[in-house]
Amino acid sequence: MADDHRARSWERRTEKPLLAASLVFFAAYALHVLAPGLPGPLHDLCTALALAAWALFAADYAVRLVHSGSVARFVRGHPLDTLVLLLPLLRPLRLVRLYNAVQQRRHRPRLSLYGRVMAYAGLSALLLGFAASLVVWQHERGAPGATIRSFGDSVWWACSTLTTTGYGDVAPVTPAGRVAAVALMACGVGLLSAVTGAFSSWLIRSFRTEDEKRPPEGA
Amino acid sequence: MADDHRARSWERRTEKPLLAASLVFFAAYALHVLAPGLPGPLHDLCTALALAAWALFAADYAVRLVHSGSVARFVRGHPLDTLVLLLPLLRPLRLVRLYNAVQQRRHRPRLSLYGRVMAYAGLSALLLGFAASLVVWQHERGAPGATIRSFGDSVWWACSTLTTTGYGDVAPVTPAGRVAAVALMACGVGLLSAVTGAFSSWLIRSFRTEDEKRPPEGA
Amino acid sequence: MADDHRARSWERRTEKPLLAASLVFFAAYALHVLAPGLPGPLHDLCTALALAAWALFAADYAVRLVHSGSVARFVRGHPLDTLVLLLPLLRPLRLVRLYNAVQQRRHRPRLSLYGRVMAYAGLSALLLGFAASLVVWQHERGAPGATIRSFGDSVWWACSTLTTTGYGDVAPVTPAGRVAAVALMACGVGLLSAVTGAFSSWLIRSFRTEDEKRPPEGA
Amino acid sequence: MADDHRARSWERRTEKPLLAASLVFFAAYALHVLAPGLPGPLHDLCTALALAAWALFAADYAVRLVHSGSVARFVRGHPLDTLVLLLPLLRPLRLVRLYNAVQQRRHRPRLSLYGRVMAYAGLSALLLGFAASLVVWQHERGAPGATIRSFGDSVWWACSTLTTTGYGDVAPVTPAGRVAAVALMACGVGLLSAVTGAFSSWLIRSFRTEDEKRPPEGA
Repeated sequence: MADDHRARSWERRTEKPLLAASLVFFAAYALHVLAPGLPGPLHDLCTALALAAWALFAADYAVRLVHSGSVARFVRGHPLDTLVLLLPLLRPLRLVRLYNAVQQRRHRPRLSLYGRVMAYAGLSALLLGFAASLVVWQHERGAPGATIRSFGDSVWWACSTLTTTGYGDVAPVTPAGRVAAVALMACGVGLLSAVTGAFSSWLIRSFRTEDEKRPPEGA
Repeated sequence: MADDHRARSWERRTEKPLLAASLVFFAAYALHVLAPGLPGPLHDLCTALALAAWALFAADYAVRLVHSGSVARFVRGHPLDTLVLLLPLLRPLRLVRLYNAVQQRRHRPRLSLYGRVMAYAGLSALLLGFAASLVVWQHERGAPGATIRSFGDSVWWACSTLTTTGYGDVAPVTPAGRVAAVALMACGVGLLSAVTGAFSSWLIRSFRTEDEKRPPEGA
Repeated sequence: MADDHRARSWERRTEKPLLAASLVFFAAYALHVLAPGLPGPLHDLCTALALAAWALFAADYAVRLVHSGSVARFVRGHPLDTLVLLLPLLRPLRLVRLYNAVQQRRHRPRLSLYGRVMAYAGLSALLLGFAASLVVWQHERGAPGATIRSFGDSVWWACSTLTTTGYGDVAPVTPAGRVAAVALMACGVGLLSAVTGAFSSWLIRSFRTEDEKRPPEGA
Repeated sequence: MADDHRARSWERRTEKPLLAASLVFFAAYALHVLAPGLPGPLHDLCTALALAAWALFAADYAVRLVHSGSVARFVRGHPLDTLVLLLPLLRPLRLVRLYNAVQQRRHRPRLSLYGRVMAYAGLSALLLGFAASLVVWQHERGAPGATIRSFGDSVWWACSTLTTTGYGDVAPVTPAGRVAAVALMACGVGLLSAVTGAFSSWLIRSFRTEDEKRPPEGA
C-alpha cells in the first residue's frame, strides 16, 4: 500500500517532465531524419538531446523498478512501459491521456464515450503513422529500387496503410523499412478499426436517439 | 430560448434556398472540372454561379453567428458548419437529411433503423466519392507521370479507395490530389464501414427474427 | 388476403422450376464465356437456353405483377425481384434459401444463428464472385493493355477484391469490366464483412460460453 | 457414453505426442522449403520425419474413427479434424489451446475474455501466415515472372495480405501459390478481423469502465 502510494506520487510528479522529454526526443529524431544536411554541431545537438531524453526514460523506468520491489513482477506487469522504453518514439502516446486528465480537472464538458474512443484511438493512430513515416523514410532514403523517394511519399504510404487501402504504388523495399511497416499495420490498423467501429456505433446510436425523441405526430 | 427559437426559424426558412445553392455550386464546379473546353462566357458563368453560391453560404454563416451572440461558442459548437463553409463541395450532404425530413412530414412509412443508417451513410459516401473524384481529376489532369488519365479512371480510383480495396493501378501522384485522397480515405472509409456494420447487424437481426417467427413444428 | 394466399401458392409451385431455370442460365452463360471456341450449333443452343430461362423469369415476374393488383406498389415492394430480373446471373442466390428450407422440412439439426449468417452470406459472396469473374473475363478478354489474361487471373482478381485486399497486380481496364467490379465491391464486400462480423461474434460468444461451463475448481 | 469416455481418455493421452509430432512436421517442412541446398541424407531425414508425423496423424484419425462407431457421422461431426489431416501444417493451431489448458490447470491468473480472443485468433493468424509464406515461397521460387524473389518477400506479402492492405508490389503468380493465398485470405482475414473486433470492443469497454470508477468530484 505504501509502495503503491509512493509509486503513484512518483508518477504524478514525473508526468510532465517526461512528457516534455518525449516531445524533445520526437522532435530531435524528426529533425535528424528530415534534415540530413544539418551542419555538424546542430546534428550533434539533436543526437545529444535524443540521448538525454532517452536517459531520462531509462532513469524513470529504473526508479519505478526499484520502487516496485520485484523486478520480474514489474516487467511482467508493465509490458507497455517496457515497450515504450525500447521504442521511445511511441512515448508521446501519453500526451492524449494527459490532455484527457487536464480536461477532467478543469470540469470541462467531456466528450461522449464514443467520442473519446475515436479521439484517443485516432490521435494514437496519427502519431503511430507519423512515427512510422519517419522510420520508413530514414531506411528507404537512397535504397536501390526504392519507390518511396520523398518524405511526402512516406506519409502518403502511411495513410494508405493505416486505412488498409494499400495502393502499393509506393511501398518499402528495405528489410528495416518493412519491419516498421509491419509494426504500423499491426498497431495502427487495430487502432483505426477501433475508430471506425466507434464511429459506426455512434452513428447507429444517434439515429436511434433521434427516433425516440421525435414528436409523436407530424410536428 | 428566444435566440434558440429565432435560430431554428431561420434554419427552417433558409433550408431549401441553401440546398439549391449547394447543388448549383456542385454542378458549376463539376462543369468547370469536366468540361475544360467550355467557351469563355460559359466558363465565367460557372465561376460566377459558384462564387454567388458560396457568398450565400458565407452570408448564412454570418447571420447565424450574429444570432448566436457569442462567436467563440458558435464556432466551437458548429464544427461541421465551419467545415462545410470551407469545403462547400460537402454541402449537399444535407440533401439526405432533407429527404428524410420530407418523408417524415408526409407520414410515409420510413425505413428501419439500419436501413436509414445504410441509406444516409451510403449516400454520403457516394457524394464524398464523387466530390473527391472531381477534385483529384482537376489536380491530376496533365500532371507528369499521372496514372489517372481520364475522369473514368478517377471514379474507378475513388470506388476502389472507398471500399479500401486499393488496387493501386491508378493513384494520385500530385500533392494536392493526395491530400484530397487522404480526406476521402478518412471520411469515406468511416462512412462505408458504418454501412457495412449496419448491413451486418441488419442481416444478423433478420436471421434472428426468422428464427422466432418460425412455426413450432415442421410446417 | 386472398391475393396474398394466391401469391404464396404461386411462389411455392414455381420455386423449383425457376431455380432450375436459373442454374441453366448460369451454366449457359458460363459456357458462353469460358468456351468461346464452341462449334456454331452448340453456341446457338447456349444462347437459346439462356434466353428461354430469362423468358421464364420475365413471365414469372409478369404473373406476380398481375396478381399483386398494383404495378407501382409491386415494383417498389420487390426491389430485389426487379434487380434479379435485370441481372439474372444473381438468381441462383435463391439456392441458398431453398437449401435452408429443405433442411428445415426434414427436421435436420440446423446451424446456429451465426453459422447460418456465415453460410448464407459466404455462399452469396462466392456466387457473386464467380459471376463477376465471368462478366469481367468476358469484357477484358483481348482488351488492349489488359492485365487479366486468363479466367484464372479473373478468379484471382475476384478473390483479392472480395477480401478487400486488392493487390492490383491484375485489375480490369475496360469500362464494362470496371462497372462489374464496382458492383462486386459494393455487394460482395458487404456480404463478406457480414461473414467476418458473424465469425467474430461467434468466436467471442464461444469463448464466453467456455468460461461459464468450466468446472469451478482446477478440474 | 462409454464410447464418449473412451474417446476423451484417448484424446487426453495422445494430446502431447501429437502436438510434438505436429511441431516436428512443421519444422521438417520449413527446413525442406527454406534450405533447398541441404545435403541428400539430411533432406531425406526431413522427408522421413514429415511422413512419420503424418502417419501418426492418420493413425490417430483412424483410431478415433473406429471408436466413434459410425464413419459417416464422425466425418460430418469433425470437419476440422478432417481438414487438419489433409493440411497438417495447420495442426500446431492446437498449441494455443494446450497453452490455455495448462494455464488453467496451474491456477494462473487468466487473460480477460477479449484478451483470450485476441491471443487465440492472433496466434492462429500468425501461424497461418507463416505456413502460407512457406507454401507460397515453395511454389513461387524460380517461377517465371515471379515478384516474390526471397522468403522475406513471401513473409512481407503474407503480412500485407493478413491486414487486407494488399500492396501488390509482390504477389503470387503461380496457380498453386494463388490457391494457398486464397486460403490465407479466407481464414487469416477472418481471424484477424476477430482480433480487431475484440480489440475495438475491449477499448470501448475499458473507456466505459474508467467512466464508472472515476471519483465524483475533481479528485
